[in-house]
Amino acid sequence: MSNFTHFDSDGRAVMVDVTDKAVTERQATAAARVRMQPETLAAIAEGQIGKGDVLAVARLAGIMAAKRTPDLIPLCHPLALTSVKVDLTLNGAESCVEIAATCKLSGKTGVEMEALTAASVAALTVYDMCKALDKTMQITDLRLIHKSGGKSGEFTQA
Amino acid sequence: MSNFTHFDSDGRAVMVDVTDKAVTERQATAAARVRMQPETLAAIAEGQIGKGDVLAVARLAGIMAAKRTPDLIPLCHPLALTSVKVDLTLNGAESCVEIAATCKLSGKTGVEMEALTAASVAALTVYDMCKALDKTMQITDLRLIHKSGGKSGEFTQA
Amino acid sequence: MSNFTHFDSDGRAVMVDVTDKAVTERQATAAARVRMQPETLAAIAEGQIGKGDVLAVARLAGIMAAKRTPDLIPLCHPLALTSVKVDLTLNGAESCVEIAATCKLSGKTGVEMEALTAASVAALTVYDMCKALDKTMQITDLRLIHKSGGKSGEFTQA
Amino acid sequence: MSNFTHFDSDGRAVMVDVTDKAVTERQATAAARVRMQPETLAAIAEGQIGKGDVLAVARLAGIMAAKRTPDLIPLCHPLALTSVKVDLTLNGAESCVEIAATCKLSGKTGVEMEALTAASVAALTVYDMCKALDKTMQITDLRLIHKSGGKSGEFTQA
Amino acid sequence: MSNFTHFDSDGRAVMVDVTDKAVTERQATAAARVRMQPETLAAIAEGQIGKGDVLAVARLAGIMAAKRTPDLIPLCHPLALTSVKVDLTLNGAESCVEIAATCKLSGKTGVEMEALTAASVAALTVYDMCKALDKTMQITDLRLIHKSGGKSGEFTQA
Amino acid sequence: MSNFTHFDSDGRAVMVDVTDKAVTERQATAAARVRMQPETLAAIAEGQIGKGDVLAVARLAGIMAAKRTPDLIPLCHPLALTSVKVDLTLNGAESCVEIAATCKLSGKTGVEMEALTAASVAALTVYDMCKALDKTMQITDLRLIHKSGGKSGEFTQA
Repeated sequence: MSNFTHFDSDGRAVMVDVTDKAVTERQATAAARVRMQPETLAAIAEGQIGKGDVLAVARLAGIMAAKRTPDLIPLCHPLALTSVKVDLTLNGAESCVEIAATCKLSGKTGVEMEALTAASVAALTVYDMCKALDKTMQITDLRLIHKSGGKSGEFTQA
Repeated sequence: MSNFTHFDSDGRAVMVDVTDKAVTERQATAAARVRMQPETLAAIAEGQIGKGDVLAVARLAGIMAAKRTPDLIPLCHPLALTSVKVDLTLNGAESCVEIAATCKLSGKTGVEMEALTAASVAALTVYDMCKALDKTMQITDLRLIHKSGGKSGEFTQA
Repeated sequence: MSNFTHFDSDGRAVMVDVTDKAVTERQATAAARVRMQPETLAAIAEGQIGKGDVLAVARLAGIMAAKRTPDLIPLCHPLALTSVKVDLTLNGAESCVEIAATCKLSGKTGVEMEALTAASVAALTVYDMCKALDKTMQITDLRLIHKSGGKSGEFTQA
Repeated sequence: MSNFTHFDSDGRAVMVDVTDKAVTERQATAAARVRMQPETLAAIAEGQIGKGDVLAVARLAGIMAAKRTPDLIPLCHPLALTSVKVDLTLNGAESCVEIAATCKLSGKTGVEMEALTAASVAALTVYDMCKALDKTMQITDLRLIHKSGGKSGEFTQA
Repeated sequence: MSNFTHFDSDGRAVMVDVTDKAVTERQATAAARVRMQPETLAAIAEGQIGKGDVLAVARLAGIMAAKRTPDLIPLCHPLALTSVKVDLTLNGAESCVEIAATCKLSGKTGVEMEALTAASVAALTVYDMCKALDKTMQITDLRLIHKSGGKSGEFTQA
Repeated sequence: MSNFTHFDSDGRAVMVDVTDKAVTERQATAAARVRMQPETLAAIAEGQIGKGDVLAVARLAGIMAAKRTPDLIPLCHPLALTSVKVDLTLNGAESCVEIAATCKLSGKTGVEMEALTAASVAALTVYDMCKALDKTMQITDLRLIHKSGGKSGEFTQA
């Protein structure tokens, strides 16, 4: 049971005690893709320049969801995020919406889960708004792409 | 702008009016995978038979998240779900946790988003509990695999 | 203490018992204005056609707030709204943003508070986004303009 | 698009990055009025000395709403408020309930929106409790009346 | 594992499937006591007739908490309660505050947990408001005292 | 009206102003019991070693509830808890489940209410999962057993 930080030595779930951790500036970026039919992507693109901006709705949903992370993920600490940014772009070549979410905090614990939750809910919102057009969409590749601050130092992956 | 149900004719976001839709029995199942290092999967497996059941925590988080769907997805209707079930299983061959979430409702609108949100938050919770072991995890293949009830009829995909 | 429906005969706050009321189709529309400097209104107008649509953000906030009404207004019943629509328009002549919010329900109690809460939070969101430009804004004229369904019948005012 | 702090240079909504702002003591007071028929005001007055204190219910609702501000206003930061005070008084001369809400914080961002949200929900709660008596009530004059702390300094208006 | 309704045959937590249950009128009453020093009880009594009504604040907190039950109790169904009533009385003989909470619903599942949650949060609120006076308070005897509606029929205990 | 910290000099409820209080390390532990039939306790024990761990579900519910305290208890401050731990053990001799919840914070106000809320919701969750087996359960002895940090110093009781 060595390495699970969220269980105590008897295997019971705990919110990790961060009382004695240092307050440092922490940042994390998560990314995700919503894969869809080219026609669905085209409809989103058309709405953006015309009427009905799917990506703007999803961006807001992602920002708001970052703030709800401790209500959703049982063992996450309540945090006073100092910045949330969610970007959505259309990738025609791969027929997907690309999502990246970045959260920041001056605090005692990392903000990966906040960034991942923001990206995840932004993706679900894209799905919700397009589901009448396309039932074959998939949300994929939700992952941490960058993290800095805290004891574990900097981390980057594609 | 033809087919986006969540925008009116001027491109403004709306919660779709379902006042006049029939109350029918509706059901949806969503699935997702959390891909991880084989050592991470092995640690989850060990905890399950020993101390610290990651999947049990994630299952509860998924069930609770289904109920929060209208708080998270801006244009979802508030719904009185009659059943939520979240299954998580270890897939050693593909080194991933497989998640399936099923929601039911007697109501006027479908429950895909509730099932997708449940699967998504269950996946995020697995991620949260394993992230100290493995920063390369990815949440993938979040998709609708079954839906029944309502005007659009039955839908199934792999 | 004759007419307060939210107090019992001893003056204690209660959530009114609607168990025996009929399920009917109910609808309510509320309206509000955010009065501001002409320059502020012009900046919103410019953003709408260019970059940064204040009204789109406020519209979503209003829709989401309608769903949170029972969490905010202590004695409101939890309701499964079937439709929420929030319109915001620029009124140059009176230098204000005009807001109208309409909610619908098939249920046992009216939806005035949901419509008023949606209009109110949409107005607060306009305020939030413009407050760096203009500290003299005022939210005014929040009122019920239409209501139908239920025992008390139809109601309309300007 | 110069001055909107809540949009980036591409017009995308963001939660403003306050990571590098100084922690200072911040305070804001908002005010609002609920205009009503003199008979409605008289009924509230009678309840206060007798049975059924409308203003006490509204005061609590306002205090609780201040804490929910980041859940309601999409781009507000989550804040650990250190004080919330909501006052409601009867103004017979103008036949209205006067509401004032004050919030405090030692933090990196102002608390205007928290004070405005508290005043707004207190006003909506007065409305809710009196709506069976009076459908012509209006919530008006919701505005910032004082603000201190932070870079922009002190602000006062009537 | 015979009788636990909230686990499936593999011991996994589920929200019980009530899709096929009948809609009936359901009601439940829960009760609790907050035991305290006689001086603390006297202070509450004095506030009630004078300034500062602890019981009124606790009553509202209880009513609002009933509505939050599905957010708090993991496997509870979301319900559209039709009535919530919370009574608090001073019992000088036993030096305690007596709390009773009654919830009603026309629905597919019982409302015991809503009544128990309302009584529990009302008790916690009494505790919160008196804790500066008395650290020895205890919340006791939280129990179901009456339940009707649904398949299991009527239940009463002291 | 001397000593109620949550009322001002006019008897109006307030969230106490802690702006000027010192940030210190604060900790509180609350305890509770769920009394039940010996057969009910035996069923929980059997599930723990077999299928269906009631205590694991209740533990998570308690941890999550600690984070919701400011949403539930009207005058509690929003806090960024740094640690939450909930223990549940079976007491065969007294035929009850024993619950202890500990919360920590570096902050300006104590965390008793967070610990009491965690213990309370963990107890309610045990109740919920066992209520089909036993309607005579009682939640009792919810009390503060330890508190440290802050001006009032250390406190311990059985």
